[in-house]
Amino acid sequence: MKPQGQEEFDGHTAYDNMLTGELDSGPCSGPSPDTDSQGQGVPKDPLLFIQLNELLGWPQVLEWRETGRWVLFEEKLEVGGGRWSAPHVPTLALPSLQKLRSLLAEGLVLLDCPAQSLLELVEQVTRVESLSPELRGQLQSLLLQRPQHLIRTTGTRPCWGSAHPRESSHDEEAPLKEQRQNALRHKLPPGAEAGAVLAGELGFLAQPLGAFVRLQDPVVLGSLTEVPLPSRFFCLLLGPPTLGRSYHEMGRAMAVLLSDPQFQWSVRRASNLYDLLAALDAFLEEVTVLPPGRWDPTSRIPPPKCLPSQHKRLPLQTQEVKGPSAQRRARAEDRHGHPQHTPSPELQRTGRLFGGLVQDVRRKASWYPSDFLDALHPQCFSAVLYIYLATITNAITFGGLLGEATDGAQGVLESFLGTAVAGAAFCLMAGQPLTILSSTGPVLVFERLLFNFSRDYSLDYLPFRLWVGIWVATFCLVLVATEASVLVRYFTRFTEEGFCALISLIFIYDAVGKMLSLTRAYPIQRPGSPAYGCFCQYPDPGGNESQWTRTKPEDRDDILSMDLGLVNASLLPPPECVRQGGHPRGPSCHTVPDIAFFSLLLFLTSFLFAMALKHVKTSRFFPSVVRKVLSDFSSVLAILLGCGLDAFLGLATPKLMVPREFKPTLPGRDWLVSSFGTNPWWLSVAAALPALLLSILIFMDQQITAVILNRAEYRLRKGAGFHLDFFCVALLMLLTSALGLPWYVSATVISLAHMDSLRRESRACAPGEPPSFLGIREQRLTGLVVFILTGISIFLAPILKFIPMPVLYGIFLYMGVAAISSIQFTKRVQLLLMPAKHQPDLLLLRHVPLSRVHLFTAIQLACLGLLWIVKSTPAAIIFPIMLLGLVGVRKALEWVFSPQELLWLDELMPEKERSTPEKGLEPECSFSGSESEESELMYQPKAPEINISVN
Amino acid sequence: MKPQGQEEFDGHTAYDNMLTGELDSGPCSGPSPDTDSQGQGVPKDPLLFIQLNELLGWPQVLEWRETGRWVLFEEKLEVGGGRWSAPHVPTLALPSLQKLRSLLAEGLVLLDCPAQSLLELVEQVTRVESLSPELRGQLQSLLLQRPQHLIRTTGTRPCWGSAHPRESSHDEEAPLKEQRQNALRHKLPPGAEAGAVLAGELGFLAQPLGAFVRLQDPVVLGSLTEVPLPSRFFCLLLGPPTLGRSYHEMGRAMAVLLSDPQFQWSVRRASNLYDLLAALDAFLEEVTVLPPGRWDPTSRIPPPKCLPSQHKRLPLQTQEVKGPSAQRRARAEDRHGHPQHTPSPELQRTGRLFGGLVQDVRRKASWYPSDFLDALHPQCFSAVLYIYLATITNAITFGGLLGEATDGAQGVLESFLGTAVAGAAFCLMAGQPLTILSSTGPVLVFERLLFNFSRDYSLDYLPFRLWVGIWVATFCLVLVATEASVLVRYFTRFTEEGFCALISLIFIYDAVGKMLSLTRAYPIQRPGSPAYGCFCQYPDPGGNESQWTRTKPEDRDDILSMDLGLVNASLLPPPECVRQGGHPRGPSCHTVPDIAFFSLLLFLTSFLFAMALKHVKTSRFFPSVVRKVLSDFSSVLAILLGCGLDAFLGLATPKLMVPREFKPTLPGRDWLVSSFGTNPWWLSVAAALPALLLSILIFMDQQITAVILNRAEYRLRKGAGFHLDFFCVALLMLLTSALGLPWYVSATVISLAHMDSLRRESRACAPGEPPSFLGIREQRLTGLVVFILTGISIFLAPILKFIPMPVLYGIFLYMGVAAISSIQFTKRVQLLLMPAKHQPDLLLLRHVPLSRVHLFTAIQLACLGLLWIVKSTPAAIIFPIMLLGLVGVRKALEWVFSPQELLWLDELMPEKERSTPEKGLEPECSFSGSESEESELMYQPKAPEINISVN
Repeated sequence: MKPQGQEEFDGHTAYDNMLTGELDSGPCSGPSPDTDSQGQGVPKDPLLFIQLNELLGWPQVLEWRETGRWVLFEEKLEVGGGRWSAPHVPTLALPSLQKLRSLLAEGLVLLDCPAQSLLELVEQVTRVESLSPELRGQLQSLLLQRPQHLIRTTGTRPCWGSAHPRESSHDEEAPLKEQRQNALRHKLPPGAEAGAVLAGELGFLAQPLGAFVRLQDPVVLGSLTEVPLPSRFFCLLLGPPTLGRSYHEMGRAMAVLLSDPQFQWSVRRASNLYDLLAALDAFLEEVTVLPPGRWDPTSRIPPPKCLPSQHKRLPLQTQEVKGPSAQRRARAEDRHGHPQHTPSPELQRTGRLFGGLVQDVRRKASWYPSDFLDALHPQCFSAVLYIYLATITNAITFGGLLGEATDGAQGVLESFLGTAVAGAAFCLMAGQPLTILSSTGPVLVFERLLFNFSRDYSLDYLPFRLWVGIWVATFCLVLVATEASVLVRYFTRFTEEGFCALISLIFIYDAVGKMLSLTRAYPIQRPGSPAYGCFCQYPDPGGNESQWTRTKPEDRDDILSMDLGLVNASLLPPPECVRQGGHPRGPSCHTVPDIAFFSLLLFLTSFLFAMALKHVKTSRFFPSVVRKVLSDFSSVLAILLGCGLDAFLGLATPKLMVPREFKPTLPGRDWLVSSFGTNPWWLSVAAALPALLLSILIFMDQQITAVILNRAEYRLRKGAGFHLDFFCVALLMLLTSALGLPWYVSATVISLAHMDSLRRESRACAPGEPPSFLGIREQRLTGLVVFILTGISIFLAPILKFIPMPVLYGIFLYMGVAAISSIQFTKRVQLLLMPAKHQPDLLLLRHVPLSRVHLFTAIQLACLGLLWIVKSTPAAIIFPIMLLGLVGVRKALEWVFSPQELLWLDELMPEKERSTPEKGLEPECSFSGSESEESELMYQPKAPEINISVN
Repeated sequence: MKPQGQEEFDGHTAYDNMLTGELDSGPCSGPSPDTDSQGQGVPKDPLLFIQLNELLGWPQVLEWRETGRWVLFEEKLEVGGGRWSAPHVPTLALPSLQKLRSLLAEGLVLLDCPAQSLLELVEQVTRVESLSPELRGQLQSLLLQRPQHLIRTTGTRPCWGSAHPRESSHDEEAPLKEQRQNALRHKLPPGAEAGAVLAGELGFLAQPLGAFVRLQDPVVLGSLTEVPLPSRFFCLLLGPPTLGRSYHEMGRAMAVLLSDPQFQWSVRRASNLYDLLAALDAFLEEVTVLPPGRWDPTSRIPPPKCLPSQHKRLPLQTQEVKGPSAQRRARAEDRHGHPQHTPSPELQRTGRLFGGLVQDVRRKASWYPSDFLDALHPQCFSAVLYIYLATITNAITFGGLLGEATDGAQGVLESFLGTAVAGAAFCLMAGQPLTILSSTGPVLVFERLLFNFSRDYSLDYLPFRLWVGIWVATFCLVLVATEASVLVRYFTRFTEEGFCALISLIFIYDAVGKMLSLTRAYPIQRPGSPAYGCFCQYPDPGGNESQWTRTKPEDRDDILSMDLGLVNASLLPPPECVRQGGHPRGPSCHTVPDIAFFSLLLFLTSFLFAMALKHVKTSRFFPSVVRKVLSDFSSVLAILLGCGLDAFLGLATPKLMVPREFKPTLPGRDWLVSSFGTNPWWLSVAAALPALLLSILIFMDQQITAVILNRAEYRLRKGAGFHLDFFCVALLMLLTSALGLPWYVSATVISLAHMDSLRRESRACAPGEPPSFLGIREQRLTGLVVFILTGISIFLAPILKFIPMPVLYGIFLYMGVAAISSIQFTKRVQLLLMPAKHQPDLLLLRHVPLSRVHLFTAIQLACLGLLWIVKSTPAAIIFPIMLLGLVGVRKALEWVFSPQELLWLDELMPEKERSTPEKGLEPECSFSGSESEESELMYQPKAPEINISVN
């Protein structure tokens, strides 16, 4: 293990990638699963921080001020605003580059200058024939003057680095306090070097003075640069005042040149002036030109999401290392998000019984110790907290729904217990320990079908369910033995998205349906309803007098007692009436007013609040820590808000049902389910039929999730374990059936959230550069701790009875909406409603005609409709087979769409012969330049396709 | 009057502005009030449509295909997608420009070629020595081949222009049907010309062949270009196949050059090859260069909101027309949104009694006939419909609130009648007939204060109000006589925004407050409340039997009749009980369940729905017509939705109170208010004191609105009439007081909506170019028709009683929120919550230190807080004086902030001496180049500062 904090500097910034041989593993170019965090091969050039100091105030008061700085992008000093501009792509004027070129050609170029201090450097630079000794002295003292920096020190307000520039002594070479406290310093990796460009107009010079110095050993040049980094380059561009601000622009041009990776690479290796000029010319060859009539040069272009890949620009010797075919494959990988048609070792069939499982165990065993050691990082603590809250939210919500679906045969307590036991066991045993188990939508739907069936035929549910579970486990073990998991290669995005959309729709439909059923349970009183009011009638006419004396008379007002004297009735609320031995009589005795609308309000509030909080992450407000917390805990906060509102008003809304002690929710059953109950013996055999269907469902559900979690773009180093995971699911099936706990499979959404909370990102980011993704902290500990905490939370269960059900329905709706809005399918459905003119510039639309895109979407919609219809009819039980049918439909689509179209709309299915896999994959080479198309493809990121981000 | 539809082509596209002398009146550079729609001066160069035809398919099947087109921006053919890309800023590679230059230098340049057809042209072009006769023939037949275009005909799907390219005959010169139906044609103004660039690789050529032709008379070259426009330029770039796609890129470079206004200007006037090359070199001098390491050349830059102004680039002779000082003023105007400190003629003091009024009448009289003739445009019909709906929404909302505020002394009927009478009269008489009158927030607040006062002292309200109105009219006439309206020059954005924020907050506070008071009126029944139920008790014990036989017995269920036999009581609902002679008895008789929460739901629904619909305008979905309708009618639709929901559930929500017949809402009063009523005579004198305060309020309210409406950025041609408008308001004050109708002043929001619905915009827009704003259809007819319709709507009033009050409160809240979120003050308040890093790149922040911006915002917040406190205390009556105090505070700010800062944060107040007005205005010239700063300012639009867009 490496020292913590150090690894983030391990050269995985976009910047470094450009300079080294890792051409295709930039942060945007998607996956490169075989790159790990250890740097290898060519030694990297250090990062360069470039600063432009301008000479201002001629002829009155000469002073140097830092007016621009560059790491990846340009930051400009807003003199009026007293702040640094937002980082932006630098733009130059062509003449300034040309003028710079001629100034350099005529000027002084010192490569590998041995100067050890600013004084030495200045002496070397000013040793030019054209300067008289007097001028030289004047110039030297000017160059030694301390420049003004606008420094934002860590945590405080910005300050002008040198408040008293006049007082600065010339020979003070030590960096200032402000320099050392500069917040920017923490953004630069150790070993970074500085480059200083000094430019300006100087009246006493007769002719321009240009000097370019590369220091042999980088040295801290006092307070020259705002960050006390050792300087490698020093460039001086001075001259007599001329028309326009040419020296400012030339200084910027020099700084931009130095910040260009290719130029920097060349100039670090340049051995004379001509190499320098050749590098400048090479730069000019590759610039992008914007026409003056269509682009305002003062506009600032925000940093692009992806920096251009530098592999085409790299010097030859580095390119040759890879060779053309390797490059080609790398590019193909780039384009398609993962290595095409070269199944990962986990998915290669061994041909032996349980061969895949054995291999999985063998592979994962070697990582087992590190699975615990790798968890020793503070990030894991926050991941545990986050996933713990998400897990109990899930357990509460699903437990509540399960309780309703099965008339209380299982409930919140079973949900907590099952989650804790199954989750912890899975974390300890599974191939992909980052997976979080959950009783998700389709299994819940199936469970409800099973329950309804057993109710209709008066079966004993839990024993019946036990036998289904036993059969499922058996079938699953057969699937493990036959290495059926290798079939996941046929699950393309079409299948994944169809499955995901279906689950999401079930979420949404259930949430809304349950909310509406509440309004039936608590009907709204309309003015037209026949009558209202509710008596409390007492059975014996003589006994009511004594009742009244027993209750406190001062509670009731005069009218009431007057009325109540007349009859053997009172106006007590129904529950109290019953307690006092009366009978509530009247049409409105059984209606509770206000509950329906208040439930609706709670439902909408929790849904909208969760949605809004989720979007706080991308808002401009609040510091990023606050935004992250609000966004990560959005559903927890929404539940808390709903509970608070409910508690504040104190209405009798329906609440979550939780047993008062630690015992099964269904009264009178043991934790261990009896093997037959009142069921006939042959039912244990007949259970094989639903079990077969459930096995298909669980296979689909588990494996689609596993495919998504093990995507190459997550850069997992320890590999997947499809067979082992499925084996674990099968064993847990047996356990949970025997204990009457919910059934569990991998949950896409929450597992992705888990992985997301364990992302390793580069911390050293240049201004404007997004942090680059290094990988995931793959370990077993976070999951384990989460499930241990969940187990402990069972004893907190009594608190849960304060949670109103409408709030949970709202969260359920939110989960559904968030999941469905994150898939590409939804984006394509939206395209149906957009006029072509307003459609976003998706790569997909550049390459596939709109009508074909719509056709593909329509087919997906039709499949989804069919699935929904099947699910809603009595034929619902065959629904898992229909799901499997999705794969078949996708295969049939190959007759309708060309491989190119499918490549853009979906991804390709594996073919029989693997000898010519790349043939059909190249973008159509017909007419308009495959060259430029390719580059357009390559450098745009292909986001994870189902990037659901609920919880 | 000009023929309709023609005027939109009157050269006000950004494109033309660049080429003519109207340098500063581009669509982005804000106002130039003195430019009208007639073109003048230098004859304009026609618009140029440029098309790139590429030769593809070498060596197999040669064919020409259009792969790019340019008007302002580039559109690229997406070969795979079969569509045109979105318009984007073209980017070039520098080498392609250099290669193009050398090819042109060696090639054939024909300027003023007299060819009359494609055939002649091709013959001329191919008359090169290097070609053998055989090659020439081959080349000619190739050049005459019909190219393939992707044409999107009007209203139908795109089709390939030439489905059978092989069959095309060579001499067919007539444009094809698809060409004539091309939808693009309607986007180009009449007189537009075409330029065709033909580029490609041709194997049988031994050396490159370049030709540039400028035709003497533009001529339609058959099916060469996709739009059958006469071609002016023809450029041929052919050569043997080389490495890379150089001919494609050279063709693009040529097309981009031709689309550059400056290059085009030069090349139209070039007389030889050297002029052509000089123009190319001038282009190169001015290009913006993006470094290759920081910008992916394949990225597409969306069209900027503003094109760069071309005035710096224009040839000298045109610049000299203006002279440096005029240019400087023009730039200052650009920067500040309106001519600085040169008060418009409407605001110059004449020094005579009623001098301003007389001048206003004189000036407006000359426009009077045109005020009716200019309304003859279909756009005015939709404006009438839109503003009519907005006006009655306003009348309903304000009428409802007024009725509540004054215990029904005035109500919806008065609101309708007053709006119709006052509005129509104002439209006929006023100086700015686009103004829509309304009884807005502050006046409503004052009216409520007045009513509370008269109630507290048991005064007869309407007669007291009559005297206040008489005094207000008198004071206002004095203000008109003394030309007080010229003081509006001291109303800066600080005052406007303070006033606007206050009104908005009153809206929001009132809406929420009224909603909450509903929940007190209809309390929520909690489980803890002592008892519920409600008897209906009959007075005489003998009479109840007969009651029961009279009502239908089958309505009641068994339990009920059993219970009711026992006592002289029933469970009838309270209203029916009273009708049958009984008394409702019981704690819950006076509570109506479910109303509170349902009202809250209606309130939130109408608010959120109105907000969401408003934002539909900027969404990507639906065609723009649908989006516009949904957005424009957002509040009407939200009210309809609320009414629909309410009607669907049929609950007894509080509804708008409307008299059943046409009579004053207060029973027993005449339309004409009696002059004293029961009040003492001296009250008519004492009314002068509140009237003085009200006069200040009305002056502020009316004039701030008038200043906003008459802003220079709206390009009104007919001038303002501050004095005349205020005179009309004074007269209407008298009329409405006498009739007991609400008081009216100009309403900012709805008047801006009125103007917005009458915008004249250029219809001929190049792809990617936003329509440019030409002005407003200034006329009196739309307003007049709106108010006549409002008058007629009085007889529709009974329908209004179906509108639930919570819906109106929701709309009220929406108005407040929309108004407050549209002012710059709100944006600055938001800055307080944003970390500096995430703040948007506002020009303001570039030039003023953040702490100063925050200080300014804090002062504004403090003023607002003080105003709010005054408004909420018994001292509320002096609140108008406090408003006036805002102007004083703003004046005092000049001691705190520098003029530069105030220029950015607010605008400058007029100074005493007007001789050196521009001195303090230049941006601080201290250090970092004022030159570049200036250009940054100039080309960014300064949006109308209070661009409230409610209704």
